[in-house]
Amino acid sequence: MESVDILIINGRVLTMARDMALIDKGALAVSGDQIVAVGRQEDVVNEYGAARILDACGGIIMPGLVNTHTHAAMTCFRGLADDLPLMTWLQEHIFPAEAKLTPDIVYKGTLLACAEMILSGTTTFCDMYLYEDFVAKAAKHAGVRALVGEVLYDFPSPNYGPVEEGLKYTQTLIDAWRDDPLINIAVEPHSPYLCSPELLGKTKVIADKEGVPIVIHLSESRQEVAQIQDKYGKTPVQHLAGIGFLAPNVVADHCVALSEEDIETLKDYDVKVAHNPESNMKLASGVAPIPKLLDRGITVGIGTDGCASNNNLDMFQEMDTLAKLHKVYSMDPTVLDAKTVVGMATIEGARVLGLDDQIGSLEPGKKADIIIVDTKRPHLVPMYNVYSHLVYAVSGHDVVTAIVDGKVLMEERVLKTLDVNEVMDNVNEIADKILER
Amino acid sequence: MESVDILIINGRVLTMARDMALIDKGALAVSGDQIVAVGRQEDVVNEYGAARILDACGGIIMPGLVNTHTHAAMTCFRGLADDLPLMTWLQEHIFPAEAKLTPDIVYKGTLLACAEMILSGTTTFCDMYLYEDFVAKAAKHAGVRALVGEVLYDFPSPNYGPVEEGLKYTQTLIDAWRDDPLINIAVEPHSPYLCSPELLGKTKVIADKEGVPIVIHLSESRQEVAQIQDKYGKTPVQHLAGIGFLAPNVVADHCVALSEEDIETLKDYDVKVAHNPESNMKLASGVAPIPKLLDRGITVGIGTDGCASNNNLDMFQEMDTLAKLHKVYSMDPTVLDAKTVVGMATIEGARVLGLDDQIGSLEPGKKADIIIVDTKRPHLVPMYNVYSHLVYAVSGHDVVTAIVDGKVLMEERVLKTLDVNEVMDNVNEIADKILER
Repeated sequence: MESVDILIINGRVLTMARDMALIDKGALAVSGDQIVAVGRQEDVVNEYGAARILDACGGIIMPGLVNTHTHAAMTCFRGLADDLPLMTWLQEHIFPAEAKLTPDIVYKGTLLACAEMILSGTTTFCDMYLYEDFVAKAAKHAGVRALVGEVLYDFPSPNYGPVEEGLKYTQTLIDAWRDDPLINIAVEPHSPYLCSPELLGKTKVIADKEGVPIVIHLSESRQEVAQIQDKYGKTPVQHLAGIGFLAPNVVADHCVALSEEDIETLKDYDVKVAHNPESNMKLASGVAPIPKLLDRGITVGIGTDGCASNNNLDMFQEMDTLAKLHKVYSMDPTVLDAKTVVGMATIEGARVLGLDDQIGSLEPGKKADIIIVDTKRPHLVPMYNVYSHLVYAVSGHDVVTAIVDGKVLMEERVLKTLDVNEVMDNVNEIADKILER
Repeated sequence: MESVDILIINGRVLTMARDMALIDKGALAVSGDQIVAVGRQEDVVNEYGAARILDACGGIIMPGLVNTHTHAAMTCFRGLADDLPLMTWLQEHIFPAEAKLTPDIVYKGTLLACAEMILSGTTTFCDMYLYEDFVAKAAKHAGVRALVGEVLYDFPSPNYGPVEEGLKYTQTLIDAWRDDPLINIAVEPHSPYLCSPELLGKTKVIADKEGVPIVIHLSESRQEVAQIQDKYGKTPVQHLAGIGFLAPNVVADHCVALSEEDIETLKDYDVKVAHNPESNMKLASGVAPIPKLLDRGITVGIGTDGCASNNNLDMFQEMDTLAKLHKVYSMDPTVLDAKTVVGMATIEGARVLGLDDQIGSLEPGKKADIIIVDTKRPHLVPMYNVYSHLVYAVSGHDVVTAIVDGKVLMEERVLKTLDVNEVMDNVNEIADKILER
């Protein structure tokens, strides 16, 4: 019998592997940071022994969720301003609050986001914000996997000053976190409307040289499309294609307002899309044409966006809203079935971030990023179909165990890497200061 | 000092009373089934003493939520069939499953629904289904307030046989539950498409004689409108107006597909509306014109519909989806602000069911239907605005205490009136039988 670090037993294993295997009475063996076996419980326990055994108690064992777009530290602004026109919200509330950002606020806000993400089953997130070295440090401290990048735009940043310094900051991030097991760095120009073609070109050079993703907001609203049309005579997607920016390593956040030609272009360049339905709904940005993108074979993941426009980071709730939104928007109850949506939140999300060789499914050789969902709860009884449950009935609150890179971050809903009260107290103090201004 | 049964202290009291008072450090006194005092904690504890003190620990003390439309026993079919065209879903899955209904299944399914509702902060629900005497008995056993009525239609029912017997069954329900403190009875013809004008007329006679509400599905989809147009040459709303059916005691479920004239008609007759956004989305029925209804001053509450089309009974999630759906559908982020939505889930819901003299707000003289939301949780930190939190961040899982009619049904998330494991086991057994067919 081979000795491993952790055995997870007595659960329904949802692998999300290519064959979509679902193992009714399954088990997993984890050694170090890796999954070494996935299979029927009787087979796994015959072959492997471990000092630490986690009993799923009949629940669902599945890959941790991948949040492909957020601004983690914006937990500090959760509910600061809602139900407002976009420009009032941004200019009178969010921008003034962000002008007060410090590395300390970003670090503490990100720790709170990590606590929330672990508690709701997200094990990887992609972040765009300021002071991203501190986002990386917070994620590392919490034990959550992340793809992070400093936001770059033409005007000076409270962090690095002029954008040339921002490009250097990005290079420093890449060098500092190279080969880190949890933290990956991306190059992150904000958007076509805040970044000149020259800046976009420079970001692409770094990303290509370093072999890292480029993350950018793209076609989030009709207003953005009109603005870029005015300036460049093209849609944002065509503008980026025209300057040679689009490529398979581009993660395009939102993609709400797309023409048919834009969709073909995204497909041609194999651009990855991060869909943020709740944020797009709350800000009244519009409904991204996700069924069409999927029909064309474009890779789409799910994001929560930041807590000022959602206002939580619960990916299970995001899945539910996503599936329902597209059904009613297309007036077709068969679009975005539950299995597809669970795929978007796991393996497809990993693919969006270029991490699908490491995470997104439960397979031997992949990183041990695993969650357990407790299904012995009134709102999850009975269970006819596990995918349907995950999308339409489960909440992030039903996640009881979370493992990232082989390390148990939560067990029985108790966080192991974070002092939850301290994390909350710190952000409450920040909020008091934000209100004092 | 006056002696009362329960003091609830140390919370932010959201009264939802006409003045919308929000008491930052507030307390409540409950005596018997009634609220006797609501106010600042120092005032309330100076005036009242109680053997039982519930500490809200800084959380939110608010009225229990009112679910204005559900089919509670359909918990038995939660996730049985999803992502299907409406007619396939109904005819190949739901109707065959419902053909097997028994009083025992309805009773046990309703108990499960009650467990789920108490755990997610719903203290009153309006139900339409078969064997409603057993729904009433289950709600009574669980301690949940309910407005229930036997579904009536032109064809024979598995419960009562021919519809004349259904009318008698309804009368029997009214007589049996008259003056019950928790259970109220409504007359419930299914819809204009399953009920002849003659049947609708008979239901109205009973409702008017007894002074009880009439609950009916109305204009749920374009298909229904087309069907009624074909048959009667009018929209469903105009058809009901034409036969003299509409009145202030009519609760119209869904109201998705309405003409401008229909909206005026609903206003003219002061018809109450139960809005079910998640069900309407999941079945791709459409988006009800709620901002227009509210602009016209029509009373609108929120419902979850049954668990086969949602698939849970979490009213907090329903509020979140509702607010976001209407923002994106109208492309206006200011519509259905958080305060309005919390009102719809509480006092307006009570008004829809004709129970606003008893419940829906925390005021002296009203029934003690109260919930406490724990806000010391990472996804609820910080808190700038309590209404925004309740709609956009809180989940039903954050409700820790529920009181109905002065009786504590849940404390620290432990159910007091139901054996939660037995309730779940019973429905799991039912599900096994449903699958055996």
